[in-house]
Amino acid sequence: MNPANSEAVLRRLSHYARCLGLAVADGIDTVTSEYLAGPCGTTSASVRKDLSIFGEFGKRGSGYPARDLLREIREVLGITETPPLVLIGAGRVGRAIAEGGIPGGGYTVEAVFDTDRELTGLPAGGLIVRHTDELAGMEGGLEDRIGIIAVTPGRAQEAADILVGFGCRSILCLNMEPVSVPEDVTLRRTEMATELDLLTHAMNSRR
Amino acid sequence: MNPANSEAVLRRLSHYARCLGLAVADGIDTVTSEYLAGPCGTTSASVRKDLSIFGEFGKRGSGYPARDLLREIREVLGITETPPLVLIGAGRVGRAIAEGGIPGGGYTVEAVFDTDRELTGLPAGGLIVRHTDELAGMEGGLEDRIGIIAVTPGRAQEAADILVGFGCRSILCLNMEPVSVPEDVTLRRTEMATELDLLTHAMNSRR
Repeated sequence: MNPANSEAVLRRLSHYARCLGLAVADGIDTVTSEYLAGPCGTTSASVRKDLSIFGEFGKRGSGYPARDLLREIREVLGITETPPLVLIGAGRVGRAIAEGGIPGGGYTVEAVFDTDRELTGLPAGGLIVRHTDELAGMEGGLEDRIGIIAVTPGRAQEAADILVGFGCRSILCLNMEPVSVPEDVTLRRTEMATELDLLTHAMNSRR
Repeated sequence: MNPANSEAVLRRLSHYARCLGLAVADGIDTVTSEYLAGPCGTTSASVRKDLSIFGEFGKRGSGYPARDLLREIREVLGITETPPLVLIGAGRVGRAIAEGGIPGGGYTVEAVFDTDRELTGLPAGGLIVRHTDELAGMEGGLEDRIGIIAVTPGRAQEAADILVGFGCRSILCLNMEPVSVPEDVTLRRTEMATELDLLTHAMNSRR
């Protein structure tokens, strides 16, 4: 049984993994719950509670062995191997991702597609933009790949339909507009406009 | 008293507002709870419950007047007027935002700053990149502005410290690494890497 079953816990574990990855890269061997709490936006008590699912780790005062804890968290999250990313959209945002990658995530963009034939053949990062018709040629299909939508505003539903039509069941949508997918498809978003709304609300609440 | 007090409700109201904005732009006068539910990732029952706080609206069967409901939601969210955005970072992601704006959000980037003097003076969208030292010259200070961090990986804490130092209390961080801010500052994130982790977890859970 996977003990990390709520989205809130999974999200925090993802934060801890990112923080631990940076610590390991900096040569830090042992981290405390306080070390993880602040940057991950939680309390040290909450860190200890979350990490108590890992048994041995989490003894008060002794600190966590960073590298071992990172490996265990990645196993619980099921992210020891990250799936390749297939990017739909070779406009400004799409190209920024193809060129810059996903910082800190350990994910790699495998291919970039666009419905616009004027963009196909152009470079995007180290890749060449291909037409979405060529999604049919992806070896092994899209089921074990994550599709990222970063298309012209108003075209996200079309991009989602294309991905789902080619068997993709895991989609990250960077467009802001509403998108519907079948029930067996997981669609997540990074919602810049909604985060700005929540910041504005908090700003007004402070007055 | 503001009846929309939980983050989950605020988030859904933000989604409804975006969906209603598109409907109004498309000339649609009346929307049903079903119309809002699918694209906003919730159920029509949940839509009706959320919108019941608006009293008159939400009568079963009659539909909601799109424009009036949109105005009411914006008032409850406190987003009838959106604060200007101050962008820190004129790299790929920062320039993409300065050029493309925030789709669907009604937010405008007012100024772009970078700590790198090689980037200051360059165009970014219709703006000119300024050095972060010039944040001191922003009329009225940063308290009523939202700061967006889109800097080189590893430099987000520095950018946050600069914003906070100039009085900013509302920050959206697009970088992935952990960032600490004082308690009276609201920091939100769009977490591409974490969303990918959660998609990967769901993908593995399906197997």
